[in-house]
Amino acid sequence: MTTVAQAQVGQLSDEDVAQLDAWWRADNYLTIGQIYLQDNPLLRRPLEPGDIKPRLLGHWGTSPGLSFVYAHVSRLIRMTGQQAIYLAGPGHGGPALVAAGYLEGTYSEVYPAVSQDEAGLLRLFRQFSSPGGIPSHVSVTTPGSIHEGGELGYVLVHAFGSVMDNPDLLTIAVVGDGEAETGPLEGSWKGISFLNPTRDGAVLPILHLNGAKIAGPTVLARKDPAEVRSLLEGHGYEVLEVEGDDLPGMHHRFAATLAEAWGRIRAIQRSAREGTWDGTRPRWPLIVMRTPKGWTGPDEVDGIRVTGTWRSHQVPLSGVKDNPEHLALLERWLRSYRPEELFDESGAPSELVRALNPAGDLRMSANPHANGGLLTKDLDIPDFRGYAVEVATPGVGRAESTRRLGELLRDLYAANPDSFRLFCPDETNSNRLGAVFEVSDRAFAERVLPGDVAISRDGRVMEVLSEHNCHGWLEGYTLTGRHGMFATYEAFAMVSASQTVQHGKWLQEAKRLAWRAKVPSLNVLLTSTAWRNDHNGFSHQGPGLIQVVLTQRGDIARVYLPPDANCLLSVADHCLRSRSYINLIVIDKQPQLQWLTMDEAVEHCARGAGIWDWAGTDDGSADPDIVLACAGDVVTMEAVAAARLLRERLPQLRVRVVNVVDLMTLVRPKDHPHGMSETRFKELFTDTVDVVFAFHGYPGAIHQLVHGRPDADRFRVRGFIEEGTTTTPFDMTVRNRVSRYHLVMDAINNAKRLPRGAADLKVWCEAKLAEHETYVVEHLEDMPDVRDWTLGDWAERG
Amino acid sequence: MTTVAQAQVGQLSDEDVAQLDAWWRADNYLTIGQIYLQDNPLLRRPLEPGDIKPRLLGHWGTSPGLSFVYAHVSRLIRMTGQQAIYLAGPGHGGPALVAAGYLEGTYSEVYPAVSQDEAGLLRLFRQFSSPGGIPSHVSVTTPGSIHEGGELGYVLVHAFGSVMDNPDLLTIAVVGDGEAETGPLEGSWKGISFLNPTRDGAVLPILHLNGAKIAGPTVLARKDPAEVRSLLEGHGYEVLEVEGDDLPGMHHRFAATLAEAWGRIRAIQRSAREGTWDGTRPRWPLIVMRTPKGWTGPDEVDGIRVTGTWRSHQVPLSGVKDNPEHLALLERWLRSYRPEELFDESGAPSELVRALNPAGDLRMSANPHANGGLLTKDLDIPDFRGYAVEVATPGVGRAESTRRLGELLRDLYAANPDSFRLFCPDETNSNRLGAVFEVSDRAFAERVLPGDVAISRDGRVMEVLSEHNCHGWLEGYTLTGRHGMFATYEAFAMVSASQTVQHGKWLQEAKRLAWRAKVPSLNVLLTSTAWRNDHNGFSHQGPGLIQVVLTQRGDIARVYLPPDANCLLSVADHCLRSRSYINLIVIDKQPQLQWLTMDEAVEHCARGAGIWDWAGTDDGSADPDIVLACAGDVVTMEAVAAARLLRERLPQLRVRVVNVVDLMTLVRPKDHPHGMSETRFKELFTDTVDVVFAFHGYPGAIHQLVHGRPDADRFRVRGFIEEGTTTTPFDMTVRNRVSRYHLVMDAINNAKRLPRGAADLKVWCEAKLAEHETYVVEHLEDMPDVRDWTLGDWAERG
Repeated sequence: MTTVAQAQVGQLSDEDVAQLDAWWRADNYLTIGQIYLQDNPLLRRPLEPGDIKPRLLGHWGTSPGLSFVYAHVSRLIRMTGQQAIYLAGPGHGGPALVAAGYLEGTYSEVYPAVSQDEAGLLRLFRQFSSPGGIPSHVSVTTPGSIHEGGELGYVLVHAFGSVMDNPDLLTIAVVGDGEAETGPLEGSWKGISFLNPTRDGAVLPILHLNGAKIAGPTVLARKDPAEVRSLLEGHGYEVLEVEGDDLPGMHHRFAATLAEAWGRIRAIQRSAREGTWDGTRPRWPLIVMRTPKGWTGPDEVDGIRVTGTWRSHQVPLSGVKDNPEHLALLERWLRSYRPEELFDESGAPSELVRALNPAGDLRMSANPHANGGLLTKDLDIPDFRGYAVEVATPGVGRAESTRRLGELLRDLYAANPDSFRLFCPDETNSNRLGAVFEVSDRAFAERVLPGDVAISRDGRVMEVLSEHNCHGWLEGYTLTGRHGMFATYEAFAMVSASQTVQHGKWLQEAKRLAWRAKVPSLNVLLTSTAWRNDHNGFSHQGPGLIQVVLTQRGDIARVYLPPDANCLLSVADHCLRSRSYINLIVIDKQPQLQWLTMDEAVEHCARGAGIWDWAGTDDGSADPDIVLACAGDVVTMEAVAAARLLRERLPQLRVRVVNVVDLMTLVRPKDHPHGMSETRFKELFTDTVDVVFAFHGYPGAIHQLVHGRPDADRFRVRGFIEEGTTTTPFDMTVRNRVSRYHLVMDAINNAKRLPRGAADLKVWCEAKLAEHETYVVEHLEDMPDVRDWTLGDWAERG
Repeated sequence: MTTVAQAQVGQLSDEDVAQLDAWWRADNYLTIGQIYLQDNPLLRRPLEPGDIKPRLLGHWGTSPGLSFVYAHVSRLIRMTGQQAIYLAGPGHGGPALVAAGYLEGTYSEVYPAVSQDEAGLLRLFRQFSSPGGIPSHVSVTTPGSIHEGGELGYVLVHAFGSVMDNPDLLTIAVVGDGEAETGPLEGSWKGISFLNPTRDGAVLPILHLNGAKIAGPTVLARKDPAEVRSLLEGHGYEVLEVEGDDLPGMHHRFAATLAEAWGRIRAIQRSAREGTWDGTRPRWPLIVMRTPKGWTGPDEVDGIRVTGTWRSHQVPLSGVKDNPEHLALLERWLRSYRPEELFDESGAPSELVRALNPAGDLRMSANPHANGGLLTKDLDIPDFRGYAVEVATPGVGRAESTRRLGELLRDLYAANPDSFRLFCPDETNSNRLGAVFEVSDRAFAERVLPGDVAISRDGRVMEVLSEHNCHGWLEGYTLTGRHGMFATYEAFAMVSASQTVQHGKWLQEAKRLAWRAKVPSLNVLLTSTAWRNDHNGFSHQGPGLIQVVLTQRGDIARVYLPPDANCLLSVADHCLRSRSYINLIVIDKQPQLQWLTMDEAVEHCARGAGIWDWAGTDDGSADPDIVLACAGDVVTMEAVAAARLLRERLPQLRVRVVNVVDLMTLVRPKDHPHGMSETRFKELFTDTVDVVFAFHGYPGAIHQLVHGRPDADRFRVRGFIEEGTTTTPFDMTVRNRVSRYHLVMDAINNAKRLPRGAADLKVWCEAKLAEHETYVVEHLEDMPDVRDWTLGDWAERG
C-alpha cells in the first residue's frame, strides 16, 4: 500500500498542480490582504489608498514558504488519511497559517464572525496585527496550532513531545533558518535519539532556508550546503533537499520529496511495528527546503532587490497609502494570484481552492491533536494514601519524601502505559524517583551496551541533559492531551524559565477561547533545592522559579511547598488531576523530618495553610503574641525548632505556628482563586499581631503576596537572600538569617507582649550563633560528620 | 618557527613523558585526596578509617581527562610561550582544576593557608566540598577560571567571548559529553562563524567523550563516531580524534594531536595576519577525545564495572570508612600514582612535577586573561551630553531615545576599536541603534554576498539570533577585561535569565575575593518593551527580567528605567564606567515624549528619583494630598497625563509627581547601597500620604522594594498584570489598569483630602474608559490610524 501510495503522492497530475497552486495562491493572497487591506478585499474594483490599512504591520518573508508546505501536506493527508499537525517555527508566519485555517473553513467554525464571505474576509484582514485583533505570529488563537510563533527555538521540542506515545501522528515541523540559530533549537534536533518508531509517531522537520532573518543573512543559509547536510546527517537524519523558485517545477519536486520522506517514515514505522526492525536508531528523513524569502512577492522595489533578501522580512512595500507607484505595485502583486479564480461570488474560497482541503478533522487546522484537551483522558491515579509515611509524633521520624512520590509515579506509569511520562535532566535517581525504573526504562534510541542499566529503546522515562528539551517535550506532550511531570534542580529551572513563562501565556490565553479544551497541567517538581546543595554551592542555590511563577496570572499559576512526604503526595495527586495550570512543587529530596499523618496532610493541603497547634503555645483563647509562619521544608524545620525553643525557654509567650503549603492562599481572593478569605486570613495571622515568616524563596515574594492584607507591614520575612556556598542546610539558614536562632530573636523583637527572660533568650541565641560561627571556621580542622551536624541537631540543639 | 615548533610539540621524549605523566599523576592524586582524605595526605603511613572524610562528596569521573589535557596544554605553553586559558565545561571537574592551580603554585599564592607543604595539602583536601570550603565544581574561587562549572552549557560561549579582540589568546574549552546535550552548548559551536582570525584569538574546543553523564550514557558517546564527526564538520570544524586509555601511548597520540591543532590555528592566524587569507571561514581545528570515564580509577568495585561507566561519575568507592576492602582498594588506587615521587619531603610538589609548569603568568591558573580586571582599561567614552535631545518644555517633543544612544555607541566603537562590542539578536537596527553600522559592520565569517548590508568578516557588531550566545559572549568578553552591551527584547531577555542569574552569582562571589580584580559590568539594554509590542502581542509582553535582577544582591544588581533620551544617555554613561555590576536598563525604542533637559536629566539620574514639580500641583508648602509616582517610560507618560487631568479638573488637589529612574533607590539603604535615606524617602513620598505608583514591571516588585519603608501599605501599585495582546500602548495601559484614567481614580480614591468635583471626575474617567472600550471593539470597523490613537492622545485626551 505505502509504496504505491508513495509513488502516487510523489507524482502530480496537471489537476493536482492546479489545485495545489490555487490553494497556495489563495493563501498568499490572504496573507498579503491581512498585511495591507482594510477594504476592497476581493479587488473587485481598482485598489485605492483608502483600501490600505493606516498602519502596515506583519511579516511576508516566511509566509509563502509556510503556505507552500502546508498545501502539499494537505494533499498528502487527502491521499493517505495521515493524521498530521503543522507547527510553524518561523516567528512570524502568522498570516499564512491563519489563512490556511480560513481556507480550510476551520477559522470560520471557531470564529463565526470571520465568515466565509466578503464580510468575513474583511474581518480577517482587519483583525490582523490590529488592536482588538490577533497577533502577527501563530498564536493560541490560531486553530490547528500548539506552538506560538513568538519566542523562537521550540518548534522541534513541541513536535517531538506531540508524537511521543502517539503512534499515528505525523507532526510537520517547519524550522526557520533564523530560529535555527537559537540554542534551544540546535539542542532539539536530537529528539530522534529518544524516539521509538513502534510506540511513537513521527516528526518531519522541514528546515526552511530562505536566507535571512530580520536584518541580515543566517548562518545556515550562508554555509556550504554540504556543511548543512553534514550537520543534519550528524544529528542522524536522512537529508532530502529541494531548492528553487520555478513553477510548476517546485510543486513537482517538493511533492516528490515529501512523498519520499513520508514513504521512509512509513517504512520505518512498518518495519518496527511488524517486528522486522533491528532496533538501531532509524535515519529519519528531514527536508531542507531552499526558497527565496518573500517568494512570489515583488522582486524589486524602487530599484532595490527585495525578494530573496531580509528586506522582504516584514512589509516589502511601504508607504503604499501615499505612494501611487507602490500602490500600483501592490495591486499588480495581489492580482498576480488571480483572486477571481480563488474566491466565488460571495467571497468564499472557490471550489478549486477547497478541493485541496482534507475532510473534517483531518484538516490540519481542525486536527484534535492540536486541541489536545479534546483527546485528554483522566489519568488512572493510584490512591496516594497508599504511599503514606507513618507519622506517630510530628518531627521525629525522617524520610526521603520524594521517594514516596517516586513509588506513586511508578504505579502511575504502570497504570497509564501510554499517557504519562516523567521528564528529567538525568536526575531521576538523584531525585529519589528511581522507583519508576522498576516499570520503565529510560528512553534511548542510540546504542545501548551490555552493562547499561534501565535504558532501552522501549523506555518511556525521558532523561536528556537539557532542561529545554525536557520542558518543551512535556509541553508538546500535554498540549496533545497527555500527562506528565518535569523534575529538575531548583536553581537550574531558571534555564527553562522562559519556557515556563511562554507556556503560561499560552494557557492563560487559551482559557479565554471557548473552543480550546483544557489540557493537562504542566507539573514542575523542584527537588534539589536552594537550601540543600551541600557540595554544589552557590551556583546551585537559587529559588528563582517561584518568583517567575508568581508573576503569572491567578487563573493558571500554582505554587506548592509541601513540608513533608504526606503533603507532597496529596499535592501531587491534586496537580496530576488538574488541567491547564502551571503547578510548581518545591520539596527537598534528602531525608527530612515528617510532620503530618496522611489525614492531617490531606486536610492541611486542602486548606493550603493552617495552624500547627502542636508546634506552638497558642491555646486559641486569645490572639497570640507572635505568629511564626513558614513555607518550605527546611525553613519549616527551623520555624518549628524556634517555636520549641520559645516553648521551652519562654513558655509564657503565646506563639502560633502557621504552615503554608499553597503559597497562593496568601493572596487576596480577588487576585487569585486560591486566595483565602479575609476572615480566614485573620484566623491564621490575626490582623494586628506581628508575623515572623520563614520562607523558602526570596523574602520579597511574601511581601508582594500579602500586600493588601490587614496591616501587611507587620510581616517580617526571612528567606533566601543570595547568601550561599558549599555548606550544610543549617549553615545555609544561618547565612541567610532564617535559622531557628534568628527566628527566636525576631519573635522576641516583634512580640506584642514580652515575658521575663526574653532578653536572656536573645543573648543565648546570639551565643549559639557565635558558637556556630566558630564551628564553621574551625571545622576544617576536625572534620565532624557533616550529616550529623546538619540533621541531627534540630531537636538536640533546642 | 611554527612548523618546527609543531613538530617539536608533537613529539615526546622519554623525559617529556615522564614529566607529563608525573604531573598528571600528581593532579589525579590530589583530586582523589580532595574527595576522600582528611588526614595522612601523603600516605606516609598505611591508610586508616580515621583518614577518611566523614562524608564523601565530589566527582571523580571527568577529572582525569581534564587534568590529562591540562598537563599537555601546559607543555605546549612552556614550549611555545602561547598565552592560554583553560575552561572546563564538565560540571564537576572542580578538584582536577583546583589541583592544577595548586601544582602550579598559584593556589598557594592567592590562598596562603593552602601552602605548598603537608599542612597546605591537608587544608586543600579538607576544604573541598565541605562547609566553609569550596564547591565541587570549578568556581569563582578557582584561580585561572572565568567559567563556573555549575549550570551547564556555556563553556563555548565564554570561550568565544574571551578571544574576541584578543588576538594572542588561545582558549582551551573542554566540552563534556553531558554538557554537549544542552541547548545552549549545541547552539554555541557556531562561534567560529563569527570569528576573525586577524583580530580575534582562537578557541580550541576539546569534546571529551567519556561516555556517561550522572546516571547513564550520553547521546554523543553512543553515536557512531562518523556521525559525531559529521556533526562537527557540519559546524565547520576540522575534527581531530584521539581515543584510548593505553599509556604512554595516549600521551604520544594526544601530544601529536594537540600540536597539530595548535599548528593549524597558528597557520590560520599567520595567513590572516600576513595577508594571504582568502577571507573564507577557516576550518578551525577541534579535538574529539575519547577516554574512559574515571580513567585510572578502580576498574571494578564489588565485582561491578566502574571505570568507563556512569558509576565513576562521583565517588567510585563508597563506604570506605567502614568497609576494609574498599579502604584497601582506595589505598592501592592512591598508591598507584606513586605519591612518593610526586611530593618532596615537606609535602610540596616535587621538582619532577613542577618541571612541567609554565613560568609566571603563563601558568593557566595565573594567566591574567582569566582575572580580566587586571587587564581592564577604562573606555574612552565621548561626552554623553553631546547627544542630548533639546527639551524646551517637558512632554512636548518626541524622540526615539535609543537612537541617541546608538549615536553614542557609534562613537564609542570608533574610540575603542578593540575593547567595546554590542551584542544583539539581530535587532540592532530594530532597536534604533543602527548608527553603529556607520563605523562597524556586523561580524560574519560565513559567505557574504553582493547586496548584503553592513556585514563582513571585519565587522565587530555581534548579531546572532541567540540570546544565549549574545549573553555568554558578552560575559566572556567582560570577564577578560573588555566592555560591552547586550541589547534585546524585554520579554525574550528571559531566554537568558539563567545566565544573568549565574553571572550575577559569579560577580557577587568575586567581590569577596581580594585577588579577583573588578571587571566591566554586564550591561543589558531592554528596548522592545512589554508596553509597546503593537503587533507582536502577548508572547512579547513580559517585564520578567526586572524581577530576576531584583533578587540579586545589592552589591551587584542595578535596575534603571530612564523615562527619556537624556536620562538614558546619563544612565548609559554611568553603566559603561561601572565595574562588576549587572546593569539592567529598560526603555522603549519608539518615538516617545521627552521630559528633561540634559542638565535636569543628569541631576535626576544622579539622585535616582525626584519630584517633577512642573507636573504636579504640589507647591511644597505642605504635604501633598496624594503622590503619583512612576518608573518606566510609558507609565510615566500616563502618570504625567493623570497629573495634568487632575490639575485641570481638580486644581485644589495637591498632587505630587515623583519619577524613579534608579529602582534601587526605593530600597532601604541597609539592603542596597543606592537605597535612599529615610529622610530623603520622606521628602519624596512623605510618610503618611498615599502613593499611587505606576510601574513598568509587575506591581509586586514595588511592594517588595518599599517593604520596611514608613507605612509601606500606603503604596498602591499599578503595573503589568499579564494582560496583553496585539494592541496599542494606550490600550495596554487600560488593560493593565494603569492608564491615566485609572491613575486619576486611584488618586481620588486614596487622596488625604478631596476637593469638590472629585466624584464628577471619577464619573468622567469611567466614561472615558467606556468610550475607549467601545473604540477598541468598534475600531475593526473603521480602522483609524493606530499610531495617532497611540501617541497623539497623551495631551489631547487630557
